[in-house]
Amino acid sequence: MTIRPEQQAVQVWDDEGGQPSSNSGNNPETDPAGYFVAESFQIPELIGISAKNIQEHLELYQGYVKAANRIIRRVRELTKDDDHMYELSLLQRQFAYEHAGMTHHEKFFEQFVGGPNACADGGPFLTQVAKEFGNLDSLTSCLKGMATTRGVGWVMLYSSPDNGHLIPHWINEHHIGLLTGLRPILALDMWEHAFVYDYATSEKKKYIDAFFQNLNWQKVELRFGSSAA
Amino acid sequence: MTIRPEQQAVQVWDDEGGQPSSNSGNNPETDPAGYFVAESFQIPELIGISAKNIQEHLELYQGYVKAANRIIRRVRELTKDDDHMYELSLLQRQFAYEHAGMTHHEKFFEQFVGGPNACADGGPFLTQVAKEFGNLDSLTSCLKGMATTRGVGWVMLYSSPDNGHLIPHWINEHHIGLLTGLRPILALDMWEHAFVYDYATSEKKKYIDAFFQNLNWQKVELRFGSSAA
Amino acid sequence: MTIRPEQQAVQVWDDEGGQPSSNSGNNPETDPAGYFVAESFQIPELIGISAKNIQEHLELYQGYVKAANRIIRRVRELTKDDDHMYELSLLQRQFAYEHAGMTHHEKFFEQFVGGPNACADGGPFLTQVAKEFGNLDSLTSCLKGMATTRGVGWVMLYSSPDNGHLIPHWINEHHIGLLTGLRPILALDMWEHAFVYDYATSEKKKYIDAFFQNLNWQKVELRFGSSAA
Amino acid sequence: MTIRPEQQAVQVWDDEGGQPSSNSGNNPETDPAGYFVAESFQIPELIGISAKNIQEHLELYQGYVKAANRIIRRVRELTKDDDHMYELSLLQRQFAYEHAGMTHHEKFFEQFVGGPNACADGGPFLTQVAKEFGNLDSLTSCLKGMATTRGVGWVMLYSSPDNGHLIPHWINEHHIGLLTGLRPILALDMWEHAFVYDYATSEKKKYIDAFFQNLNWQKVELRFGSSAA
Repeated sequence: MTIRPEQQAVQVWDDEGGQPSSNSGNNPETDPAGYFVAESFQIPELIGISAKNIQEHLELYQGYVKAANRIIRRVRELTKDDDHMYELSLLQRQFAYEHAGMTHHEKFFEQFVGGPNACADGGPFLTQVAKEFGNLDSLTSCLKGMATTRGVGWVMLYSSPDNGHLIPHWINEHHIGLLTGLRPILALDMWEHAFVYDYATSEKKKYIDAFFQNLNWQKVELRFGSSAA
Repeated sequence: MTIRPEQQAVQVWDDEGGQPSSNSGNNPETDPAGYFVAESFQIPELIGISAKNIQEHLELYQGYVKAANRIIRRVRELTKDDDHMYELSLLQRQFAYEHAGMTHHEKFFEQFVGGPNACADGGPFLTQVAKEFGNLDSLTSCLKGMATTRGVGWVMLYSSPDNGHLIPHWINEHHIGLLTGLRPILALDMWEHAFVYDYATSEKKKYIDAFFQNLNWQKVELRFGSSAA
Repeated sequence: MTIRPEQQAVQVWDDEGGQPSSNSGNNPETDPAGYFVAESFQIPELIGISAKNIQEHLELYQGYVKAANRIIRRVRELTKDDDHMYELSLLQRQFAYEHAGMTHHEKFFEQFVGGPNACADGGPFLTQVAKEFGNLDSLTSCLKGMATTRGVGWVMLYSSPDNGHLIPHWINEHHIGLLTGLRPILALDMWEHAFVYDYATSEKKKYIDAFFQNLNWQKVELRFGSSAA
Repeated sequence: MTIRPEQQAVQVWDDEGGQPSSNSGNNPETDPAGYFVAESFQIPELIGISAKNIQEHLELYQGYVKAANRIIRRVRELTKDDDHMYELSLLQRQFAYEHAGMTHHEKFFEQFVGGPNACADGGPFLTQVAKEFGNLDSLTSCLKGMATTRGVGWVMLYSSPDNGHLIPHWINEHHIGLLTGLRPILALDMWEHAFVYDYATSEKKKYIDAFFQNLNWQKVELRFGSSAA
């Protein structure tokens, strides 16, 4: 599944565990089509999550990219006089919603690429998991429990760049309650659009299970990267 | 001005521009007093911001550290049965408020340490500023304008770890609207407690001016670090 | 479609336009099963909104009633000592989410009861609409436009109890941005669960159209009640 | 203390317990100066709350009235084409912040007018308080405890129009977590600006005590009005 392959974002590498990350900010001067560019994802056939649901979900993702670009463009257009300060501040606030919607979805889709691979035993990620949670099943149970939080949002697993410590976390909507200074290494979308084509809202636990069946843990490990001491 | 020097946090260096960052997660196993430890700051006499206001502000900061520790402790105590899932999810959500309150205040106070030093001309930060804003005065005007946003929150300057791009931003309260994957390199506290001992709420522009008079831009540059391409 | 008919809430009449309103607060002393009681709704076959979607939606509604009751019960159980003040405050905050989720859904479902009836020409509601919007089509267009707001939430039409003035409004989630002191006389659910069994998220305009095809405007008029001067 | 007496709002009476309420919506056609008009309040000398703090606070209140008017004006000016729907939705969302900021402050200031009078023993309000809380001291303790909630916001006491039931509540900022369909009969401002000219943030309990020393309970009783069965 590929979106706009002709606009394949320039692959850049950030320092958050070594993963490519195109939407931390493309260069506006060299990208006339928009500041942010929708990424494409080679998503294989999934267990328990239909191609239709993924397709609808990817279209929503593209909406976030479009809206984030729109805000950046409008902020530049608006005169910074007193008459427009109020609207500028509203656009500025809303930017976080669109930006987080965009970047979290990218983390989400990337986790399916390559299929459901396990991490190497004895590698830095599983070592940290064992230290803090006993084993991967316990961590997974914790994340699954958190995923039943009422409302719409995201279950995240963060790691500390200082000492590799793992912090499971819930984010409301896309942008309410992010943790700062920590690495998001796993992102589970708990908005209704993530699963309703396949499961009723009263059955969302089936979607949660399906997510973990398809998760490429090697991607999580890559993001965890050099977190561990 | 030093808080609890006997508990000086172990200095660790994260990969976000080289700055020490102790509260991205201390090691709970080696820190019996709490997961997070309040940092101390050697804040010089400031222009236009009184010692009393700073002292009150530092006490509030310590409240965030205490509350963040309380949540982590309670989450561990609570049985993860169905009966407590609801409260667990509330604690989890609130954690972001306390965590962001804690970490943003640390970024804020650090910026006064060492006094108001200018960045080196031709260095990576001022080069990026010139490229995007013309000069430092224009960037400062932009940040000052944003600081008049209605409500309580923070003006942030983020930089992209990919290409050094600078993004001025507003965060509501502490935790609503953070940007993910970007580096917070400047943090201006626009809660009322940050200035009301010195200025009336109707005069908050004077506080904003005072902030920039005291800001150690070398700290901002250090956080910007290797952002630039 | 009836939920728990054996627990039919005692019909009470509030002063907001004369409509029965059972969940502004039942008497906890006479209701051992819970402070709030799920209402039942005689919803006819709808145009463009399936029985399955309504059924799933009603189950979600019951979840809000259950959660609101749970919070009230927990608040009473918790000792009000310093050690529990923090959790009490979290429960208290979350109560608004559950309470608004419950009451807005009740307003939503009630609007389908009796089928899509028009208001009387020359009645107080249409007179006010004509005065402010020209005609009902213009008001409906305004509400439909507002329904395309990004995010999850509600389109509301409020009326002023002072002078009947009509205020179309958007609420985020259930509880962010309610207007106080005004009467909610129309409530359109724009959470994804309201329509995804029938329409893809990219087709939500079809759901918006279907809502207005099924809306019993006489219910809106009844709520508007004696608002007009 | 009187604000803009020449613009004294037309006194209207809503059906929420009989109190005058001018900002549930003035008539835009007859009010060229703005849709909402700042009210004036005859506030006596207070115990423990300085005239300076009240004066600054009243100026902030007028800022909410101004901002609410600005949004209403901008919403009317903006063309409702696809290009402006996004900004319209932002203005719409922000309206609730300004509207609630305005109306809550009005409820707050009104409570000081006439000075700290007690309610009649055996009247409907104290009867309800006795039934649910034992006595007024217990209710006051509950509200004081809630006022120590972390963050900025409001302690509210709501009553049910159905059966008079009393619900103490916390609102975050001005607009996050309002209860719908209930009457706000007491409003305690817990933003920092409400007290910082008189008390340090670490001493906010003194302000909470001062509030209750100055509260005109007869105003609360008037709002409670015919709530009781």
